Amino acid sequence: MSAAAEYARLKGLSLSLDMTRGKPCPAQLDLSNRLLSLPADDFLDGDIDARNYGGIDGLPAVKQLFADILGVNSENVIVGGNSSLAMMYDAIARACQFGAGGDAWNCDARRKFICAVPGYDRHFAITAHFGFELIAVDMTADGPDMSQVEAAVADAAVKGIWCVPKYSNPSGVCYSDDTVRRLAEMKTAAADFRIFWDNAYAEHHFTADPPTLANIAELCAAAGNARRVIQFASTSKMCHPGSGVAAMASDAANIADARTQMAVQTIGPDKINQLRLLKFFGDLDGLRAHMKKHAAIIAPKFDAVQEILARELGGLGIAKWSKPQGGYFISLDLGTDSGMNLPGGGAKRVVELAGEAGVKLTAAGAPFPHGADPHDRNIRIAPTFPSVDEVRQATEVLAVCIKVAAGM
Amino acid sequence: MSAAAEYARLKGLSLSLDMTRGKPCPAQLDLSNRLLSLPADDFLDGDIDARNYGGIDGLPAVKQLFADILGVNSENVIVGGNSSLAMMYDAIARACQFGAGGDAWNCDARRKFICAVPGYDRHFAITAHFGFELIAVDMTADGPDMSQVEAAVADAAVKGIWCVPKYSNPSGVCYSDDTVRRLAEMKTAAADFRIFWDNAYAEHHFTADPPTLANIAELCAAAGNARRVIQFASTSKMCHPGSGVAAMASDAANIADARTQMAVQTIGPDKINQLRLLKFFGDLDGLRAHMKKHAAIIAPKFDAVQEILARELGGLGIAKWSKPQGGYFISLDLGTDSGMNLPGGGAKRVVELAGEAGVKLTAAGAPFPHGADPHDRNIRIAPTFPSVDEVRQATEVLAVCIKVAAGM
Repeated sequence: MSAAAEYARLKGLSLSLDMTRGKPCPAQLDLSNRLLSLPADDFLDGDIDARNYGGIDGLPAVKQLFADILGVNSENVIVGGNSSLAMMYDAIARACQFGAGGDAWNCDARRKFICAVPGYDRHFAITAHFGFELIAVDMTADGPDMSQVEAAVADAAVKGIWCVPKYSNPSGVCYSDDTVRRLAEMKTAAADFRIFWDNAYAEHHFTADPPTLANIAELCAAAGNARRVIQFASTSKMCHPGSGVAAMASDAANIADARTQMAVQTIGPDKINQLRLLKFFGDLDGLRAHMKKHAAIIAPKFDAVQEILARELGGLGIAKWSKPQGGYFISLDLGTDSGMNLPGGGAKRVVELAGEAGVKLTAAGAPFPHGADPHDRNIRIAPTFPSVDEVRQATEVLAVCIKVAAGM
Repeated sequence: MSAAAEYARLKGLSLSLDMTRGKPCPAQLDLSNRLLSLPADDFLDGDIDARNYGGIDGLPAVKQLFADILGVNSENVIVGGNSSLAMMYDAIARACQFGAGGDAWNCDARRKFICAVPGYDRHFAITAHFGFELIAVDMTADGPDMSQVEAAVADAAVKGIWCVPKYSNPSGVCYSDDTVRRLAEMKTAAADFRIFWDNAYAEHHFTADPPTLANIAELCAAAGNARRVIQFASTSKMCHPGSGVAAMASDAANIADARTQMAVQTIGPDKINQLRLLKFFGDLDGLRAHMKKHAAIIAPKFDAVQEILARELGGLGIAKWSKPQGGYFISLDLGTDSGMNLPGGGAKRVVELAGEAGVKLTAAGAPFPHGADPHDRNIRIAPTFPSVDEVRQATEVLAVCIKVAAGM
């Protein structure tokens, strides 16, 4: 059957599938339902009554848990509310208003921020909102193209870089040791340059032998750039995204500054929810055992995408795609294997065709600054929320749409 | 016995009492322990799965609950995280960076904010942090001195006013209808002037016939100043302060602006905690029934303070104090009944004497901008956290210290 005929057949099925969002599916959420009855009659963490006011930087035991995840000391951790994105936003907002060890970033009207592309749209949106020019650098199989990054940071107006170092959204890349080292050691014109290290998927593997990530905090400190990196993590995709716990970690001076400023902002985070998570996970080993249950649910979905893309598009030279070992996304680029491009790149056209056949995909261009993919070639695939059958069907539709757009 | 001899006797008791903080006591916290096992197996609000991402402005039923508390429509409410203070901070931060319908407040280097004194130190700290000059106006028995307020807002650099309209912290005042009307109707030089209406104690009565507060949102709208007021409330002092739910309410245009900006900041608040509170309170009637249990615990503490202050200091002309019908504080002024002042005002000296006798009081001056009471006469009494016996003992010490400072 021709691609056009196959597309017509699939369109006739009146599908309604959604692969737009990096959301856990209901079966994943069910893994954590015990949380809904916790912490029960227990409201103490040591001698702290978690029910009452106080404790700006979180319960000590929860600080330790995040310290274990991020490879830092617990005194370098602040545990916050339910959103790591909000902690990043706040860190940017504080730096803009009050500075990050130097002048307020607002003082530099030319302020710029580095975005590896494709990347996470919500990161880019924060810095765009605060008036930064977004400097796109290419994402490679080892992380951001470091030659481009090193060239960019020679400009003192460049204040920072967004990084999702493990299972990058959407490419699935784990930064190589060399990339992490170069980020830590590179000379930046701005003394107050900051790496926003969103380690959102630190424990989110679905293969048996996951890659390891170099410890950027140690490398920064060794290079004399201890204040350069601010790490973030959250339990959103470990338990219930609507009620997770987020944390940040950094050098002592940055943490002291943040804590002082946060003490003006709030009396403290939700300590009961922190205690609840602690009762649920126990410790890092318990958390890792729990993450294996997630992997068992989502690995077959990623496998299905890989299998169908390989079967339908393998060797055609019209698309290539990532094969992540963790995280929530697969990134597909049209036409890049062979140098051949679909007409005008084609990603928008493919997403449109899929939509007309009842398969919603993330808007083409979303993983780029201001939602514009200069090559119109990238498509983000988010296979976690639909069922395996739905993922199979949606991927088949996607593959056919790519063939149709390629005129096959 | 002379005051000095009585003071020496009390000092000999090696007391260790703390009346510094407006915190619920453990018995109050115990009233809400059922929350620690909720929402159990229920995670749906209508067809919304509260466990997953989404819902920037909160669960509809929780929006309705806060709408009922604040006297607005639920579409004018945004439900947030656990801290109303953080929502106020964020509203100030957004106005400073992006404006509140006009230029960014940061653009006015002379920016000023009105603070009725004595007032809430954490309010004042936020605006001081963002570089506002704090304009003190006197608190009267009807709320802020409106002649002073109306004079202040003739300056376009004056961007807003902090208000705790019911059972003000620390005076316990409920703003009169006339005060609320004048706030809503007054002509302000700044078109983007904002009233930060922190209705923290809206339902926190401990008398049978509590005062009512005029509806400022309606009065502002009627006066053509619908965007002028932003209201705040939280359940912190209804259930567990460490894990409450906060909300803001305002005119549709302000809410739309806030929601758009918050969508850059976070994917959404902790909806499970919102659902938990909903299961616990049911509706406004359930919430009010719950608040009566709080009143039963704390009213005897306020009664004890009033009884001892009247017995020890009544008619001496060396102090007067507020007699609130709700809230968390009693405000005491030295020497103001008779015009007689203790040496140098005396509040700092009294707090110091009390401290030396083992009774910790809020630092003198805390309820004033930058912690400085120009008359050194105000003392904040926070009787909720200690037991009734401790409150009695602490108040006896306080009364003796005032007599000693007065040289009696």
